Amino acid sequence: MSYSRNQLHSFTRAFFEKIGCSAGNAAIIADVFVAAEMRGIGSHGLIRIPDHYHLWKAGRLNTKPAMKITRETVSTAVIDGDNAPGMLAAAFSMDTAIRKASGAGTCWVACRNSNHFGIAGYYAMMALEHDMIGICLTNANPLVAPTFSISRLLGTNPIAVAVPAGKHPPFVADFSTTPIARGKLEVAVRKGEKTLFGYVQDREGRPSDNPGILREGGAMLPLGGDREHGSHKGYCLSATVDILSALLSGAGFGPFVPPSVAYLPLPGENNGKGTGHFFGAMRIDAFRDAGEFKNAMDKWIDTFRKAESVEGQPSVLIPGDIERKQEEISKKRGMNLIPAVIDELNRIASELDMDTRL
Amino acid sequence: MSYSRNQLHSFTRAFFEKIGCSAGNAAIIADVFVAAEMRGIGSHGLIRIPDHYHLWKAGRLNTKPAMKITRETVSTAVIDGDNAPGMLAAAFSMDTAIRKASGAGTCWVACRNSNHFGIAGYYAMMALEHDMIGICLTNANPLVAPTFSISRLLGTNPIAVAVPAGKHPPFVADFSTTPIARGKLEVAVRKGEKTLFGYVQDREGRPSDNPGILREGGAMLPLGGDREHGSHKGYCLSATVDILSALLSGAGFGPFVPPSVAYLPLPGENNGKGTGHFFGAMRIDAFRDAGEFKNAMDKWIDTFRKAESVEGQPSVLIPGDIERKQEEISKKRGMNLIPAVIDELNRIASELDMDTRL
Repeated sequence: MSYSRNQLHSFTRAFFEKIGCSAGNAAIIADVFVAAEMRGIGSHGLIRIPDHYHLWKAGRLNTKPAMKITRETVSTAVIDGDNAPGMLAAAFSMDTAIRKASGAGTCWVACRNSNHFGIAGYYAMMALEHDMIGICLTNANPLVAPTFSISRLLGTNPIAVAVPAGKHPPFVADFSTTPIARGKLEVAVRKGEKTLFGYVQDREGRPSDNPGILREGGAMLPLGGDREHGSHKGYCLSATVDILSALLSGAGFGPFVPPSVAYLPLPGENNGKGTGHFFGAMRIDAFRDAGEFKNAMDKWIDTFRKAESVEGQPSVLIPGDIERKQEEISKKRGMNLIPAVIDELNRIASELDMDTRL
Repeated sequence: MSYSRNQLHSFTRAFFEKIGCSAGNAAIIADVFVAAEMRGIGSHGLIRIPDHYHLWKAGRLNTKPAMKITRETVSTAVIDGDNAPGMLAAAFSMDTAIRKASGAGTCWVACRNSNHFGIAGYYAMMALEHDMIGICLTNANPLVAPTFSISRLLGTNPIAVAVPAGKHPPFVADFSTTPIARGKLEVAVRKGEKTLFGYVQDREGRPSDNPGILREGGAMLPLGGDREHGSHKGYCLSATVDILSALLSGAGFGPFVPPSVAYLPLPGENNGKGTGHFFGAMRIDAFRDAGEFKNAMDKWIDTFRKAESVEGQPSVLIPGDIERKQEEISKKRGMNLIPAVIDELNRIASELDMDTRL
């Protein structure tokens, strides 16, 4: 069965209103969830609503947050998310970065006391209409082991960068610092599929192709996979994301990120507040006339589109191509959800006595 | 034969003075070269002097540059390096970033019309003594093929991040966005060794273990190696470094980076000026009291040092550990150069009628 943007947006909005969000805030959150579905990143879409439901039931999510700036300079701000759903804290943080960058040229915002915020690319892309480059980082559930280790000390810690172009659509990179996003392992679990080797290891550090191994003490590997192929670089990247997101803001770092999944225990020690994010907005014309930059960006994109493929391989993609094409398809044909997810969401809707069903 | 810091510094200084640099500028350049040797990154050390010699002989390096800021806001600057040796343009850019960040909280500097600048970590580390986080990116010789392609459109485009800690030494990540740095392939070529598979492909895109394949039209792979293991993420990273370094500054992007190696032709079309870099300096106390941050950073480091290793694997390292330990060893025991490199450098010294020999 296929759903329209409106159907998914209404359901998500209704759910977040039901658990206490204002209508305006529920709409902001639904925008992010539905953007994930539209862009073909179902792993970060409505499949995550049950996690929010369980966190809310456990009293671990504040649906009436008083978010505020706690420190600032002309080109920086620190925001306390007051344990809001991550989408609210992130949208507020990126709005702040954009507002302040229009004065100072750039602005960098560290956010603590937040939660899982969905797709990082959404916030980076908020900068585009202002002729700014947008950047968004976040730490996440501790499920990644640094090189040589079995200890789960880092998250999949994604990096998103959005860059405006001229005649071409923007460059939008949004990727985890692991070979595969955790959400894609979740999808494999729900579909009952195995994964390739090189994504996860078991609790003793042996290679595994079981996407459910994280529930059994296994860990994800950093981008690069093994030491010989640069996993220490993936570890450096993930560590950098963690430090900028958590240590500048005062959020929980690494193993102290509050888990958004039920199979991870709450961290015993409290080394910071909630999940941490880091946002950047850079005005193009702080560096170069925006028109000139966009022309150069168009040339960049043309150059990469003209790259020669390895025989039998597809054409070179510009970051954002796949998601944008999927968005167009979603507009026309609607979106599918995994049947098990639909059942789970309808069960939640019924438990909450919501008027809406999928 | 082993050389002291002073011997290598004197030789490098003498070489750059001989090709026209002022004594002060030659000393700045020698600092960077010798830091690479001290830190065990010989691939970015004196082995690169011949490249500078050949560029200078070809009239492609300006040893008497007039570098200047061409545009700025409170938190940004654009610098024209006037085709200086990269170390001069980079040190001037990072000095500018640090100076302006002390006012605005952060500062971001894009530099065009520069050249190869040695180890990126050197410039990121300049921020540490100011209680700032330092960031340094650069584009480089077009030798990396984007995912699916045989066209060499990107460089190894490194990322360096330096973060101050308290009782512990700083966190210093400095890594190329490829499984292995190009310099390490060069070392393998000079030693006559093969490499592992997963670093390079031949001109048709087939896997190769020949480190010299770049001279035969082959390409390096992005971090991740193949699509299934996340090479598109390495491509995104490398592309982001290229865009921030070249498109914000007006330098040559991707295939238009002027090559620092003789086996690459000069780009025919001119799509920007020289090599591009991007620098950031962020005042810690723009976000959080510096003491509090450093305590948190010490906890972060302690947490990662206590990680449990996979059986038979070494302990988890903190980024910067290896280079710092090597620096201590270099201080005590001096540094070795590859015999073929010593011969080449002495031949150059003799051609230039330098007073110094190795």
